Amino acid sequence: MTAVSIDLNADLGEGFGRWRLTDDEELLSVVTSANVACGFHAGDAATMRRVCDLAAARGVRIGAQVSYRDLAGFGRRAMEVPSGELAAEVAYQIGALEVFARAAGSRVSYVKPHGALYNRVVHDPEQAAAVVEGVLLAGERLPVLGLPGSVLHAAAHRESLPVVPEAFADRGYTAQGTLVPRGGPGALVSDPGAVVERSLGMALSGAVTSVCGHPVSIPARSLCLHGDTPGAVSLARRVRARLEESGVRVEAFA
Amino acid sequence: MTAVSIDLNADLGEGFGRWRLTDDEELLSVVTSANVACGFHAGDAATMRRVCDLAAARGVRIGAQVSYRDLAGFGRRAMEVPSGELAAEVAYQIGALEVFARAAGSRVSYVKPHGALYNRVVHDPEQAAAVVEGVLLAGERLPVLGLPGSVLHAAAHRESLPVVPEAFADRGYTAQGTLVPRGGPGALVSDPGAVVERSLGMALSGAVTSVCGHPVSIPARSLCLHGDTPGAVSLARRVRARLEESGVRVEAFA
Amino acid sequence: MTAVSIDLNADLGEGFGRWRLTDDEELLSVVTSANVACGFHAGDAATMRRVCDLAAARGVRIGAQVSYRDLAGFGRRAMEVPSGELAAEVAYQIGALEVFARAAGSRVSYVKPHGALYNRVVHDPEQAAAVVEGVLLAGERLPVLGLPGSVLHAAAHRESLPVVPEAFADRGYTAQGTLVPRGGPGALVSDPGAVVERSLGMALSGAVTSVCGHPVSIPARSLCLHGDTPGAVSLARRVRARLEESGVRVEAFA
Amino acid sequence: MTAVSIDLNADLGEGFGRWRLTDDEELLSVVTSANVACGFHAGDAATMRRVCDLAAARGVRIGAQVSYRDLAGFGRRAMEVPSGELAAEVAYQIGALEVFARAAGSRVSYVKPHGALYNRVVHDPEQAAAVVEGVLLAGERLPVLGLPGSVLHAAAHRESLPVVPEAFADRGYTAQGTLVPRGGPGALVSDPGAVVERSLGMALSGAVTSVCGHPVSIPARSLCLHGDTPGAVSLARRVRARLEESGVRVEAFA
Repeated sequence: MTAVSIDLNADLGEGFGRWRLTDDEELLSVVTSANVACGFHAGDAATMRRVCDLAAARGVRIGAQVSYRDLAGFGRRAMEVPSGELAAEVAYQIGALEVFARAAGSRVSYVKPHGALYNRVVHDPEQAAAVVEGVLLAGERLPVLGLPGSVLHAAAHRESLPVVPEAFADRGYTAQGTLVPRGGPGALVSDPGAVVERSLGMALSGAVTSVCGHPVSIPARSLCLHGDTPGAVSLARRVRARLEESGVRVEAFA
Repeated sequence: MTAVSIDLNADLGEGFGRWRLTDDEELLSVVTSANVACGFHAGDAATMRRVCDLAAARGVRIGAQVSYRDLAGFGRRAMEVPSGELAAEVAYQIGALEVFARAAGSRVSYVKPHGALYNRVVHDPEQAAAVVEGVLLAGERLPVLGLPGSVLHAAAHRESLPVVPEAFADRGYTAQGTLVPRGGPGALVSDPGAVVERSLGMALSGAVTSVCGHPVSIPARSLCLHGDTPGAVSLARRVRARLEESGVRVEAFA
Repeated sequence: MTAVSIDLNADLGEGFGRWRLTDDEELLSVVTSANVACGFHAGDAATMRRVCDLAAARGVRIGAQVSYRDLAGFGRRAMEVPSGELAAEVAYQIGALEVFARAAGSRVSYVKPHGALYNRVVHDPEQAAAVVEGVLLAGERLPVLGLPGSVLHAAAHRESLPVVPEAFADRGYTAQGTLVPRGGPGALVSDPGAVVERSLGMALSGAVTSVCGHPVSIPARSLCLHGDTPGAVSLARRVRARLEESGVRVEAFA
Repeated sequence: MTAVSIDLNADLGEGFGRWRLTDDEELLSVVTSANVACGFHAGDAATMRRVCDLAAARGVRIGAQVSYRDLAGFGRRAMEVPSGELAAEVAYQIGALEVFARAAGSRVSYVKPHGALYNRVVHDPEQAAAVVEGVLLAGERLPVLGLPGSVLHAAAHRESLPVVPEAFADRGYTAQGTLVPRGGPGALVSDPGAVVERSLGMALSGAVTSVCGHPVSIPARSLCLHGDTPGAVSLARRVRARLEESGVRVEAFA
């Protein structure tokens, strides 16, 4: 019998110049996949290099966290970007990060959209197709990390790109297995203990209790941990420890 | 006896978003090496993609025209950038361009600093070393196009990177073979006929008449043509035609 | 009987650093109101100063052409900007321009949203209210130039801000007096002669022939002339000449 | 006999979008003059508004902290900006901040260059003159805060602009009363107690002990407190408390 395994991913390198946001060193001792900001919502070149060096040294997989071009809004403001521009911008970001991943002896191994772009490609076929076109432009047929059932994953699937479904242990799920929209009742799970147990449930059974109280299937191969809140690192450690002591192998997705 | 050959390079893709500067299509029918702006002084991702596609289709070599991060100043304002930042920024730009060069079936084949960075690394060992470090980070040991005798070329040489010396047929040279500083008497050669003949002389004999009236040796393997002035394209055509009718092979440097 | 009068407005100063777009000097000899870009979609500080100096010297009214923060997209990409941010960004742009208008002996006399923001506040109450809040923050209770019937004008009206309705002689109108969406049949009027006659009709009778062939009322106190296309300046001259020879006073709105 | 008085200034609002740096609320309870970042090295519009509102509510004077356009380098990288551009950029920043100061019921009351620009105008007459030209463009003949003996103050003096000399209690001074360059021995005073006592000495006697061990005159009307280091706020509080308990009136400069 094979052991259950799960990937843990987090956003890293989300500073810019003088500003820092995430505790990159600490998070890199917990996660198995690092979503590295590529300069469009955060992440100057020197920070990208530093994070790639740290990730490679610790055997953490490097992914390109691609975004709208929006430093002032941290990539959280949805934008109507024409497809051709968006595809080129995605490819540009992947290419820039690839230099630092390779220089560190690693590679960019996957792509994950950030912020408003992440939310947009859950349901927008045009922008989803543009993201996929950008990944294809970058040439390595990289897996796309995202929400199961998203339009992005459908678009990736049409181009035979691998997809990696992820789940959020600190977010509420509807009976249909979709995220409760932010601001709605039960959207956020704030109790650390609950987050830890939900992580374990997601990893072991691929399911979570929905806001309606019934289990709902969440086919996740990666769990997204948040790194930019107080207590984020210690919660991430607890999640990882709970998974490991329960026999779950914490490792980057295949 | 082997024929004399020379490379012709020009800055391309120097628009940004809505703005255009260079007539990329026309210039790509003249030059053999395209210095493509990489987003720091000019060159959005969609423009970079388009220029790479055009260059590859015409067999024009693609180079990364790397710059200080300065859209507002078009990279023409010297900046005191710490070495680590500058090296990372150079690598970032090369990596971003590489994606579009490869997608077009080509490769980034050389690196040329732009504007104020170009001028700075003629004499500044620290920034020159940072540019070389950036090229090395990018991993392909790319040739560095620049001024013969520059500190940049010395720094590249120390790392065993190939260097490609270039000359400017529309600039005056001192008796020592250095450029007459802009603003000084004889700094610019504005007569198109003179530019054409100086180009030919540089290609055939590796020499040009200095502002003092004597021939001075200019060991150039590439001539830089300017593309952002009125009449630039027609002058470029005249230069190329004169070279070819005189038996000079116009081709990318080896 | 008082003579009919009309204002002519155009977007000016839409370059950035090295890049130029509009022929500001020529347009300033035609229009009576200059929509000056304020640095968010175009318009560096030195350009803003130069355009204000030219406008003031020619007695052309200065308006703040406010935009989303989007140099790469020239302000043409709709953005989901939270209201508080948008209001502050609008005020920031007005304040920056005010310095150059005053230094030139003039004042910022009105506000006009640009590009995607212009289109958005035709129908989006939240962003329209944010623009109005930004104008109020700037403190001078400036008139808001925009589309008659727009949500922006309704929002301005609620705050007792003056509104100035404008029309486009080179755009098609529906039977309801709204613009035919770009891309639709009849959206653009490309014949210069037709643009000239439509301008005159709009000024004299406040009406234009809709795409359905019937006259429709367009209560415009200003006509927007486009300055960034080939032939723009000569068309603008023709419009102004036709208006004046027909007895229409071309002057800034009261 | 009039009581001795001193101004305390600090840099505020030095975040950008998602990023925070300074504890603005706490610092505003200590200082009497707030150097507010204006968007070029830090400081988005919403942050500027918030800081102005807070400063006005607490009776803290608002100053424009003007910078090179360099978000990526936090304004700490010296730049060769042509005079005309630099003057316009300074005026642009003052104008933008003025909107928020006025909306809060206050005014921009002084100008202080930031970072690399601050250091540059200590000795560079051309950039110093450009900063002064920018202040004059802004129209209010604002006082210029800076280093006593700086070329900036000389340039301001020539235009009859008021100047406000400032001192740094946490920096070492030479026997000539100039700052020990960063990196040199004694450049930084890290002991909090020493900083407190030096502040008091500067306020009471206008003098400080140089690195050579002898007192040197420092004619400061304002002391600059740093706000972006751990312990900055508590040190600022100690400085203020020590001044007040010693009978020094802590108040904005006249």
